Amino acid sequence: MLQTIDPAPRTAFPRLGWVEDLVVPALRDAVAGLPAPESRVAGYHRGWVEADGGPVQVPRQRGKAVRPALTLLSAVAVGGEAVRALPGAVAVELVHDFTLLHDDVIDGDAQRRHRPAAWSVFGTPAAVLTGDSLLVAAVRAVSEVPESSGAAVTELLGALRQLVAGQSADVAFEGALDVSVEQYLAMAAGKTGSLMGCACALGGVLAGADRERVDGLREFGSRLGVAFQCVDDVLGIWGHSRLSGKPVGSDIAARKKSLPVVAALAGTDSAARELRSLYESPRPLDEQDVALAQELVEKSGGRQAAEDEARRQMAGALRALSCARPTANAYRQLQEIASAMVQREA
Amino acid sequence: MLQTIDPAPRTAFPRLGWVEDLVVPALRDAVAGLPAPESRVAGYHRGWVEADGGPVQVPRQRGKAVRPALTLLSAVAVGGEAVRALPGAVAVELVHDFTLLHDDVIDGDAQRRHRPAAWSVFGTPAAVLTGDSLLVAAVRAVSEVPESSGAAVTELLGALRQLVAGQSADVAFEGALDVSVEQYLAMAAGKTGSLMGCACALGGVLAGADRERVDGLREFGSRLGVAFQCVDDVLGIWGHSRLSGKPVGSDIAARKKSLPVVAALAGTDSAARELRSLYESPRPLDEQDVALAQELVEKSGGRQAAEDEARRQMAGALRALSCARPTANAYRQLQEIASAMVQREA
Repeated sequence: MLQTIDPAPRTAFPRLGWVEDLVVPALRDAVAGLPAPESRVAGYHRGWVEADGGPVQVPRQRGKAVRPALTLLSAVAVGGEAVRALPGAVAVELVHDFTLLHDDVIDGDAQRRHRPAAWSVFGTPAAVLTGDSLLVAAVRAVSEVPESSGAAVTELLGALRQLVAGQSADVAFEGALDVSVEQYLAMAAGKTGSLMGCACALGGVLAGADRERVDGLREFGSRLGVAFQCVDDVLGIWGHSRLSGKPVGSDIAARKKSLPVVAALAGTDSAARELRSLYESPRPLDEQDVALAQELVEKSGGRQAAEDEARRQMAGALRALSCARPTANAYRQLQEIASAMVQREA
Repeated sequence: MLQTIDPAPRTAFPRLGWVEDLVVPALRDAVAGLPAPESRVAGYHRGWVEADGGPVQVPRQRGKAVRPALTLLSAVAVGGEAVRALPGAVAVELVHDFTLLHDDVIDGDAQRRHRPAAWSVFGTPAAVLTGDSLLVAAVRAVSEVPESSGAAVTELLGALRQLVAGQSADVAFEGALDVSVEQYLAMAAGKTGSLMGCACALGGVLAGADRERVDGLREFGSRLGVAFQCVDDVLGIWGHSRLSGKPVGSDIAARKKSLPVVAALAGTDSAARELRSLYESPRPLDEQDVALAQELVEKSGGRQAAEDEARRQMAGALRALSCARPTANAYRQLQEIASAMVQREA
């Protein structure tokens, strides 16, 4: 059975108390500004309240607000004040919540952040409408910035477009066996890279950085997002439920085309062939099937390929970050966040 | 049984061929720019293609593109060129489609525009994701206007916020018996008025009109939207399925808190009491119940109240339109559209 509470930190994610001090009150304001029913669903989704709207009974592992941290640090990296980038930090976190709420409806995932997903508690209509309201609130957050609001809105809308395309591709992959590694990487760049790229770029835009630095920040975030997704895919197959908040092997049971599987299916050895016939069979995959698939993916090099890709993307991310000419201190902090994101315990 | 095809025009809606000539190609471009699966769902939803993506087999009654017409005519009304307001016209129609796709998921409505609703053909995930992609495309459409884009984006986001709040209230009404007429009107102003108000205001904004004229246009559209909703509510109870595309009395069977019902339930006569006990009973309402409820709502003055309210809102709409100082010709055309919208055959 799935363990639902995990108060222990799952990674050596750097403590950035000042980021939380800035972002959490602004996020609470934004969520409080939603209509009451959606505000409650969003508060539950974020782990601020229980399903009945009351205070949380057991302290939970809180989200690490990675994207807001990237936004504020990116602003500092180009010589700006973190507070100027706060609307961007709020916007990317609201968009992140919007995607999680709708993705859980779309994928039928009943677990999120070690709790029942919002749709399974409040119903699909409430989850859809809360996602919609968060998306609108996110765009409003950046549109209300007096200076450079046009550029910030454009940055966010561009990311949203890629994000939807990535989610669309991810859904389409479900019905397809022949997904190439290139197609997977394009999907991951949309689904995960675009918002992290936007988080970093918005920090630059709102701090008034020039285009070259903003481009560097965007590519840093985007590649970091893809690296993160590669690692997340590995955890989705071999991770512990206590850490991921999802049942072990759930990605295999759902026949997800995650990178290790895509890379393994591209092989021609006997393990790849056996895996393919398992994925092609119409019957539900039981525990033994999942264990066998884990073995086959590892044997045919799928895990190695995903880990190699994560490293490649990470190296590219850091090269791109250098192009943004960040201050030494901010570079170090961004690198620390990036490392923590891809070195999570499997 | 529900008749699914209705080639006959359902109202004397003025022919505005030039509006269609401008708007339809721009809408097709916008929909073609979505990821392929969402583009297909949106095309089906709009009646451009069948569910398999092939050409439509039977010519269908097309949408009248009321909102785009309001946008373009509003631009003309303040002395601008219609084409300058085209991004606004596209945006409001895309938002309208977004709301329909998500509303049908939220309300569980299986029929839309005389065909099975998109979610019932393609599944809830596809309908949710297509709605999301249309919403993003809508905001992008106005954000890409070089001049006055900030004001246009702000106008659209303000309307979206009210729209989500209106939808939220509409959903909340389902579980409540004591909805006042005031609460209903606030809901309708959000759910229906905000986007029509935005359609008109965007025409003014994109044509470069001053704030007073934009405010007048927004109030005209908003009140027109509420008037339209009042009439739609009457049709939802007493309209013909051939015209509305929905089963007769479906609003009653779903115990919807539409205006005639809200007004009737506010009464204290015996018809109101009988209606209340019918709405309070936990069992599903059959055909006889629906017929009885129709009679009770009419008897206790609910229908009259809704028709009076529609007239009041319409008068207010035309007063507001005068404040926008429209050209005589545009005023006449806007008035014609408005009249056609609220004088639909019951």
